[in-house]
Amino acid sequence: MDYVYGPGRNHLFVPGPVNIPEPVIRAMNRNNEDYRSPAIPAMTKTLLEDVKKIFKTTTGTPFLIPTTGTGAWESALTNTLSPGDRIVSFLIGQFSLLWIDQQQRLNFNVDAVESDWGQGANLDILAEKLAADHTHTIKAICIVHNETATGVTNNLATVRKLLDHYRHPALLLVDGVSSICALDFRMDEWGVDVALTGSQKALSLPTGIGIVCASPNALEASKSSKSVRVFFDWNDYLKFYKLGTFWPYTPSIQLLYGLRAALDLIFEEGLDNVIARHSRLGKATRLAVEAWGLKNCTQKEEWYSDTVTAVLVPPYIDSTEIVRRAWKRYNLSLGLGLNKVAGKVFRIGHLGNLNELQLLGCLAGVEMILKDVGYPVKLGSGVAAACAYLQNNIPMIPSRI
Amino acid sequence: MDYVYGPGRNHLFVPGPVNIPEPVIRAMNRNNEDYRSPAIPAMTKTLLEDVKKIFKTTTGTPFLIPTTGTGAWESALTNTLSPGDRIVSFLIGQFSLLWIDQQQRLNFNVDAVESDWGQGANLDILAEKLAADHTHTIKAICIVHNETATGVTNNLATVRKLLDHYRHPALLLVDGVSSICALDFRMDEWGVDVALTGSQKALSLPTGIGIVCASPNALEASKSSKSVRVFFDWNDYLKFYKLGTFWPYTPSIQLLYGLRAALDLIFEEGLDNVIARHSRLGKATRLAVEAWGLKNCTQKEEWYSDTVTAVLVPPYIDSTEIVRRAWKRYNLSLGLGLNKVAGKVFRIGHLGNLNELQLLGCLAGVEMILKDVGYPVKLGSGVAAACAYLQNNIPMIPSRI
Amino acid sequence: MDYVYGPGRNHLFVPGPVNIPEPVIRAMNRNNEDYRSPAIPAMTKTLLEDVKKIFKTTTGTPFLIPTTGTGAWESALTNTLSPGDRIVSFLIGQFSLLWIDQQQRLNFNVDAVESDWGQGANLDILAEKLAADHTHTIKAICIVHNETATGVTNNLATVRKLLDHYRHPALLLVDGVSSICALDFRMDEWGVDVALTGSQKALSLPTGIGIVCASPNALEASKSSKSVRVFFDWNDYLKFYKLGTFWPYTPSIQLLYGLRAALDLIFEEGLDNVIARHSRLGKATRLAVEAWGLKNCTQKEEWYSDTVTAVLVPPYIDSTEIVRRAWKRYNLSLGLGLNKVAGKVFRIGHLGNLNELQLLGCLAGVEMILKDVGYPVKLGSGVAAACAYLQNNIPMIPSRI
Amino acid sequence: MDYVYGPGRNHLFVPGPVNIPEPVIRAMNRNNEDYRSPAIPAMTKTLLEDVKKIFKTTTGTPFLIPTTGTGAWESALTNTLSPGDRIVSFLIGQFSLLWIDQQQRLNFNVDAVESDWGQGANLDILAEKLAADHTHTIKAICIVHNETATGVTNNLATVRKLLDHYRHPALLLVDGVSSICALDFRMDEWGVDVALTGSQKALSLPTGIGIVCASPNALEASKSSKSVRVFFDWNDYLKFYKLGTFWPYTPSIQLLYGLRAALDLIFEEGLDNVIARHSRLGKATRLAVEAWGLKNCTQKEEWYSDTVTAVLVPPYIDSTEIVRRAWKRYNLSLGLGLNKVAGKVFRIGHLGNLNELQLLGCLAGVEMILKDVGYPVKLGSGVAAACAYLQNNIPMIPSRI
Repeated sequence: MDYVYGPGRNHLFVPGPVNIPEPVIRAMNRNNEDYRSPAIPAMTKTLLEDVKKIFKTTTGTPFLIPTTGTGAWESALTNTLSPGDRIVSFLIGQFSLLWIDQQQRLNFNVDAVESDWGQGANLDILAEKLAADHTHTIKAICIVHNETATGVTNNLATVRKLLDHYRHPALLLVDGVSSICALDFRMDEWGVDVALTGSQKALSLPTGIGIVCASPNALEASKSSKSVRVFFDWNDYLKFYKLGTFWPYTPSIQLLYGLRAALDLIFEEGLDNVIARHSRLGKATRLAVEAWGLKNCTQKEEWYSDTVTAVLVPPYIDSTEIVRRAWKRYNLSLGLGLNKVAGKVFRIGHLGNLNELQLLGCLAGVEMILKDVGYPVKLGSGVAAACAYLQNNIPMIPSRI
Repeated sequence: MDYVYGPGRNHLFVPGPVNIPEPVIRAMNRNNEDYRSPAIPAMTKTLLEDVKKIFKTTTGTPFLIPTTGTGAWESALTNTLSPGDRIVSFLIGQFSLLWIDQQQRLNFNVDAVESDWGQGANLDILAEKLAADHTHTIKAICIVHNETATGVTNNLATVRKLLDHYRHPALLLVDGVSSICALDFRMDEWGVDVALTGSQKALSLPTGIGIVCASPNALEASKSSKSVRVFFDWNDYLKFYKLGTFWPYTPSIQLLYGLRAALDLIFEEGLDNVIARHSRLGKATRLAVEAWGLKNCTQKEEWYSDTVTAVLVPPYIDSTEIVRRAWKRYNLSLGLGLNKVAGKVFRIGHLGNLNELQLLGCLAGVEMILKDVGYPVKLGSGVAAACAYLQNNIPMIPSRI
Repeated sequence: MDYVYGPGRNHLFVPGPVNIPEPVIRAMNRNNEDYRSPAIPAMTKTLLEDVKKIFKTTTGTPFLIPTTGTGAWESALTNTLSPGDRIVSFLIGQFSLLWIDQQQRLNFNVDAVESDWGQGANLDILAEKLAADHTHTIKAICIVHNETATGVTNNLATVRKLLDHYRHPALLLVDGVSSICALDFRMDEWGVDVALTGSQKALSLPTGIGIVCASPNALEASKSSKSVRVFFDWNDYLKFYKLGTFWPYTPSIQLLYGLRAALDLIFEEGLDNVIARHSRLGKATRLAVEAWGLKNCTQKEEWYSDTVTAVLVPPYIDSTEIVRRAWKRYNLSLGLGLNKVAGKVFRIGHLGNLNELQLLGCLAGVEMILKDVGYPVKLGSGVAAACAYLQNNIPMIPSRI
Repeated sequence: MDYVYGPGRNHLFVPGPVNIPEPVIRAMNRNNEDYRSPAIPAMTKTLLEDVKKIFKTTTGTPFLIPTTGTGAWESALTNTLSPGDRIVSFLIGQFSLLWIDQQQRLNFNVDAVESDWGQGANLDILAEKLAADHTHTIKAICIVHNETATGVTNNLATVRKLLDHYRHPALLLVDGVSSICALDFRMDEWGVDVALTGSQKALSLPTGIGIVCASPNALEASKSSKSVRVFFDWNDYLKFYKLGTFWPYTPSIQLLYGLRAALDLIFEEGLDNVIARHSRLGKATRLAVEAWGLKNCTQKEEWYSDTVTAVLVPPYIDSTEIVRRAWKRYNLSLGLGLNKVAGKVFRIGHLGNLNELQLLGCLAGVEMILKDVGYPVKLGSGVAAACAYLQNNIPMIPSRI
């Protein structure tokens, strides 16, 4: 079953699924249980309460849906919108593209705002659209907080400011798949109506829980949404929340215990410390890229992502070959370039339960691979640049002081 | 996290989620991996090939969807039918009721055929409907193979015979959630068009994979189905099957390895031996119930289920109290009576990776609980009846002869 | 690697190694760690403090030696005695025999007091020897608290009374391998000088830690003991205790975390409740044996063991065949008869993390096996007798009330 | 229980216990079993056969003793020698010192040959002693193949040549604790009489098995050895080998399955490839040390160790502070300097299941720590030097080509 086994640990630097911490692997190492016994609802109650903290919301209502990010998207859309509703949606990379594809197939009227891949959402155009929309035909703004394909982080605070400025009632639906629990995310402060993530991203669990959090406005909208839905229907959850049994259908016992452990670790480290750690890892990675003489796919600093860095390679190199060699020679898993940037970028995911020395091992590996494929990198240069920054900025591990 | 811990093993006899065998727990005890590396597609290919064997199909196309049984239902319906389509659906217990509720909410025109809870699907009425349907307004027959709420197994071979007899082209959609891998199920022979199950049932995995298998007819129907769907759309899977990367969105790495191990165990034991074992366990349970002087909720022998037994309690006993005491005093998890039979039945699940001595421990526990709640059971009577049968019928463990 | 796999759980009823509770398996599911980091000594400190509670001592000094019970024996002897020292040692079964063999090979002068296998230590003879030993030539009394081969529990309180009565200074060395953490054991109250057990017995861990606890007298004796020893030398431990690093050589990280979890579970249940549970399991087993019309190898009630029952079979049956069939047909592991009682007894271990329904499954299995081998057992009779007792005596699980 | 938890993986670079590969952790994630069932002897048989391969012996007899390296030493000595026997033993660091201490306490007549810490065994003196020993008073040569405290590898081939040259019959006892399965070791070719290692070293298991392999000469010697021993007595093993049940006392079930998995991984990679990998890791580490401007504690290239590198720090730095900061700030576990070199060296263990990128992460960490403690290292310099070598020398992972 491990027929492609290589010595030592796999260095997992795809932007999801990410490394699972040992205590979480341990917590999930268990037999099934009756989810109708008193134990599971009691634990679920703590999960629903605690998961709100990673969204920074006190007023939101979370749903732990046995699905992936794609399902979480569908849940966000079908519960709050009706077929034909106009949505402004930003196309800035492969994952926003896939979400827009879903929006169209679900029969929404998608007003797509496209940017070059490597740029953030064009908020000037959003401003124009909001300004022009006196009759409030726009029912929702759909935006990916962090586009995983290009390593671009959008400015959600500005989106909220524009909506407020134009007193526009459109719902704000945010894909936080590669941001929540890693980047600064403030559901209540930014007036996000639906935020969502997947368990296999910064929460550092296996795939299997789509976590969706709905604002009171979103819940209100769900009462009149005419989108057909059953599996993804929030009402089924709300009914069981009232009963105190919580689950309309069978959850994964293992993932519930895993989520409990994952949240415990995040709160032990401190959510803000977790975010600061991602900031360090992102900065260190970008310093290495710069030292290698390569360009970040992300075109401006304001959009730099602290969870994933897409690195542009020179035209004479196929980035797919970099990813292939990483796995075949160095037991290193990097992210491919997708769609428009296929062959042009490779991606370093630096999110989830990860520390600086793990990243530095990856960066050293990337240097060797760059050399393998004919790029004239100075070996050690990226690691040196990253270390120069990190050595000044890594805090002591609090529990060990 | 184990704040309701009791000494010794939990005796898990709910009809799902069921006991996970140790080798499967081991196989899932692992970190995440890049699902775009060559390793995961290579393993997925073997899974898709091998999973067909548990459906007994060579022509079907399987989908391993990151969802639950409820999602698998939705996948079966929305890919093959269009809103307004007439469906004949059998209501014989809580799970068929829930499926019908879903069918209605998905805007199908449901022609529900109801039976007393404890009876099987009324196939005489099906015959009448088919006979009368000269214009083929019925697009699908939806039937639960094994109704988990009442322990009733329907006769699928007869359903197929009726369809053939009336040369009716309706699709045959089967919920095999608590039957596949435990009861005799023959997708190709019985002309089942969509069959589905969930990983946490007889496959003995955690919850998280809805396994749906589509016949060529069902695939053909999916091309013209007008039901809105994205997450559950088979076409996305088929597109990635062609690419050889298999996954339109992130699967659970752990469940894939777990499924591999679960299938290996089933094939090592032999699928027919697995089914024979369930037959033994079912028979032994029913003999115990009879010895206790209690009635099976299932009204006729032809419907007896070998995966779950719903036991009727005398009117002066609340079956909920039996389930509660089982857990609180004996570390035994039994199934509650649901909806119409709430308080009237308790359920013993005897499916999945389970052996005879485990069942006998459960039966001994049930006897003590019956006494606890005031039923004048003769202690040892059920175990004696079960043992008398089992001692003549348990085979030697093949690997140990 | 699981080439003898059978469906369902293995029913493990050998008197060690015993079932490991899931939380302990989880706690041990981990990578290695540096045992010289601050983490391991900090945890070790809590272990040494807490392990004293299972010996019921406040004055003893515990040693967690990376060895088995055989090594723990050697540690007890070589640290307290010198070659040629006279020991009174009781031979009542295979394990006391093996200990005496070790005592002889270590060059002690063993004064063995033999009983029939099935009887306890002959304390009348001990009294005689003590009375006669005016010059205190006897340096130690070596006694197995619970002889695992015959299911005989010796009365340690009486041994202490005799020593006190004769004001005899001999050290009291006790093998508590199959008693400590399961039977009533009081190191301080009974003036035990060295007590020992193994991790794979009632502590319900894997094999690998020999736990030895020394009284102040025993520690004093170790200063003048002339037995050659290095690996087992307590002085090496004491030196590292003083340094606060605790380990003279590398411990098993996994077993330390496992021991931490095992102790936590025992204290959560309550040591006295653990002992009461073993008393219930022992009593229930003996009632079943009686109902089957078979005899206990233990000849008098005063010696009945609550951790293991050795069952005598009629002369026309080979008990080895019972053990063989248990494993080959029922996935049940029973203990063989050893040495003098080989072929004549089979043993049911009922110690460690075990509950009543597990035992009842085993008893039902034994009934079927007895029938298999031609013994005219009434199926259900043993289970009925056990249930009649247990149904009146099992407490509610405290954490679930 | 993880109260010193830090984010991300612990970087374990002590020279034991070392990282356990995931497949081995998985293999050990299991309940106990009856070690007297047919399954365990059948597996043990394969282990005893296969473990000989890591010693490169076909004539040796292996013993898998539930103990540590210290116990394995004691087993080697007491089975082959008698009290008073003259031993030539080399003192070149802390572990050879401890072995000599054991030899003395076991009452052998130790003729210690001391070298500066950082030098190998003085084989010139051995030659002199052999030349002078016409009456063969020397009964054994005891030598540590790889001194873990100083990172010094001794030349065993030369030792054998000297013994042969002087036709001296002394037994050759070798501590291969930090060499076997990592360095070139040839039991038969070099005429080693007893070789030993511990499970937690290059085999990459938890602590708990002392693996001792005895040549026919050593077995012969064990027949007349007068050293007192029971737990460590080979004869008890040999007796059970003959019976085919293999175990004189209870083994750890988990470690047996773990050893099976560990051997499978080693053979899959190929033992010679494993050794070549260690050679690469050792060379890369030394290149980094050189680039940092620091000195290797090992004084000559001929003694360089490929499993552990002891790095000398300038007098104004306390190496203990380096180890402390590594753990407290970087989640990196390094080895302390011991005894004579305490405060003067820190150690990087690079043995066991480890790959190049893991090592490079460690080296990057060491660079930052060196800067932390005031050493003027050029960040990136060591990594660059290591990468320059590794990029030319790492092979493709065979299973992924």
